Amino acid sequence: MRILLVGAGGVGDAIAKIAARRDFYEQIVVSDYDKARAERTVAWISARHGADVASRFGAAQIDASDPDRVAEVAREHRATHVMNAVEPLFVPTIFAGALAAGADYLDMAMSLSEPHPTDPHARTGVKLGDDQFAQAGDWERAGRLALVGMGVEPGLSDVFARYAADHLFSDIEELGTRDGANLVVRDEAGNEIFAPGFSIWTTIEECLNPPIVWERDAGWFTTPPFSEPEVFEFPEGIGPIECVNVEHEEVVLMPRWIDAKRVTFKYGLGEEFITVLKTLHLLGLDSAMPVRVRSENGPVEVAPRDVVAAALPDPATIGPRMTGKTCAGLWASGLGVDGRPREVYLYHVSDNEWTMREYDAQCVVWQTALNPVIALELLARGIWSGSGVLGPEAFDAQPFLELMALPEDSGGYGQAWGLEERLGR
Amino acid sequence: MRILLVGAGGVGDAIAKIAARRDFYEQIVVSDYDKARAERTVAWISARHGADVASRFGAAQIDASDPDRVAEVAREHRATHVMNAVEPLFVPTIFAGALAAGADYLDMAMSLSEPHPTDPHARTGVKLGDDQFAQAGDWERAGRLALVGMGVEPGLSDVFARYAADHLFSDIEELGTRDGANLVVRDEAGNEIFAPGFSIWTTIEECLNPPIVWERDAGWFTTPPFSEPEVFEFPEGIGPIECVNVEHEEVVLMPRWIDAKRVTFKYGLGEEFITVLKTLHLLGLDSAMPVRVRSENGPVEVAPRDVVAAALPDPATIGPRMTGKTCAGLWASGLGVDGRPREVYLYHVSDNEWTMREYDAQCVVWQTALNPVIALELLARGIWSGSGVLGPEAFDAQPFLELMALPEDSGGYGQAWGLEERLGR
Repeated sequence: MRILLVGAGGVGDAIAKIAARRDFYEQIVVSDYDKARAERTVAWISARHGADVASRFGAAQIDASDPDRVAEVAREHRATHVMNAVEPLFVPTIFAGALAAGADYLDMAMSLSEPHPTDPHARTGVKLGDDQFAQAGDWERAGRLALVGMGVEPGLSDVFARYAADHLFSDIEELGTRDGANLVVRDEAGNEIFAPGFSIWTTIEECLNPPIVWERDAGWFTTPPFSEPEVFEFPEGIGPIECVNVEHEEVVLMPRWIDAKRVTFKYGLGEEFITVLKTLHLLGLDSAMPVRVRSENGPVEVAPRDVVAAALPDPATIGPRMTGKTCAGLWASGLGVDGRPREVYLYHVSDNEWTMREYDAQCVVWQTALNPVIALELLARGIWSGSGVLGPEAFDAQPFLELMALPEDSGGYGQAWGLEERLGR
Repeated sequence: MRILLVGAGGVGDAIAKIAARRDFYEQIVVSDYDKARAERTVAWISARHGADVASRFGAAQIDASDPDRVAEVAREHRATHVMNAVEPLFVPTIFAGALAAGADYLDMAMSLSEPHPTDPHARTGVKLGDDQFAQAGDWERAGRLALVGMGVEPGLSDVFARYAADHLFSDIEELGTRDGANLVVRDEAGNEIFAPGFSIWTTIEECLNPPIVWERDAGWFTTPPFSEPEVFEFPEGIGPIECVNVEHEEVVLMPRWIDAKRVTFKYGLGEEFITVLKTLHLLGLDSAMPVRVRSENGPVEVAPRDVVAAALPDPATIGPRMTGKTCAGLWASGLGVDGRPREVYLYHVSDNEWTMREYDAQCVVWQTALNPVIALELLARGIWSGSGVLGPEAFDAQPFLELMALPEDSGGYGQAWGLEERLGR
């Protein structure tokens, strides 16, 4: 397996660092629009793991917005797999470039949605991933695999759904991805500050888009933002957090392969973050359209959303000042294999102090990066295989979860996952 | 009386329009940095009241930031009174210009405060009006009067305090100014929108400054923003609104002339507005310091607070789309003249539809403008007189409130004010 990793931002960087501890591939070329960023990742691997390990890594410049250039770099390095680790805005071009180069493809977020033009809070327009599934025939005919949505959410959550369907339930009522964290960022003086661990620009996009829900009878439909709030109890000391519906890939992926009555995604934004997003929307500060503003050099045109991002601390710099854990998981309900009511929460928790120490990577970013590396290893070993455009739930979940949980000294990733019985809680 | 009105913005314009129905003065010169704005006010008066009335008005250009220019314009028009109707930022220069020209002076907001450098949420630094009171000796020696804080709040609220002390109480526990409104602004489609009726820039300044409180034993002290929330019931259908401590002139004025145990100012911001202001502060979007932001023409420097103002509808344009009432008043408690516990709310309500129809002025702005005109009339008739730097509570409240409430056809302003007994409510 020869991997072209596109993007050496937070997640791309962590993918390379996690893969550096494994040996299932022949080469990984880390590529970025800014080649120096890709080189930094390889230099970190060299410093931490030595020249031998680093010799399996290369660095390259790439323009992810250009499918020809993606195909060119993939061919040049004889890539068998293109791993997309950049903003979802560039899914279509990397997706096309990989197919053109005859490589398999993986991503962690799918092609973007467009709201319904007249009824956005009830009906879907263009859904997440629609553009990619429309091209499934091309991938099948080429005998190539596009494994889409293979991060942590979507990704691990979808693996959990497959596992629940195959091993825990005879009849599934709801598959509900639930994500929450107790991360805290402090300033130099030790005071808690408001500093999201990920791009506020993307969070605004994700959270203010109409959330999507799937039901067996109704199919896919949308709701107003922040709908169906519920307080979900997260494990390992994270505790109760207010979760709301958010547009996410799981809802478009799971129903394609798994039989359930209802599929949802709720994000544990917490009351403060929900208030922040609602207020930004109320004031028009979520807008990506420029407004005219006075400045010392005369009037200028800036997008309010860019100003919000500029006024907050840079998420790339807050890892060392952050403490706490993030939890990704799937809450499932229905009838167990014995035919009796069952409710479980399958989850994985990532601790920022541990990921910073082990990988110089923030826990949210690191947790996202872990899962595509496991998937690549299963594909390299031939344990997973397929062609066409497939989600993680199209594959057997058992070997994924085993490899993930197995201790490192026994050949696994040493990342325990949990199963909590929730009925009656 | 010859009045130089400085500022033909919302309040200045309304002062001229209200005065146009009265005859206590010889001339009013409306001045503005933008002379066309002053001319528009005079043209409105001419169109509404005819050339005769308009002949008592003139228009002039003025630079309020230059005391020499203020004095020059005042002398040129032989002004006996300078009426300051611009942003409080320009109080020091107009104040100085009036004295230099040998004119009396009135304003509706006082010289700005500066927070305590190390303990801003407990101790006062430079208080509102400190700069003006420091010059009281100059005004006394010159035999000239500076009547400061003579709008609605401060202004009418201080008149109510004097009235309460002279006619309603034998011992005052608390003088608490309480301000609230039920104003609603709609977009073209009739949907309610978030559109403050006054500059968000100024509101941020006012509400995020440490609020000031006075107590007989402690003197003046400050608190964190939004302290001591209470739900206050406003009259005439406005109803209950959450009010919080806000920095305001009444608290520095009333204790200088009236004996009370405690003096407060609470503003009925309402929960939504408080949330907005807190969120802006949390995200650093209240900041007036420029941040670097990407734009289509490369990085630019803008102050987040300017972007917030630019993203909201222009307050100058919303009058015709606004409905509702605003209420200014004083809640006072203590022992009545009979020595028994008493609690009253003295208030004045202004209805936007009425002020728009009668004056083409938004109700918040119009209500502010009404009171200095009444005060000027009392000074012109010799009913009020004095020298030095004095607040409205230094004068007899009875003739003010009588002239205000008397019907227009009987020579008054036709503006009823209310007194509600509140004990036990």
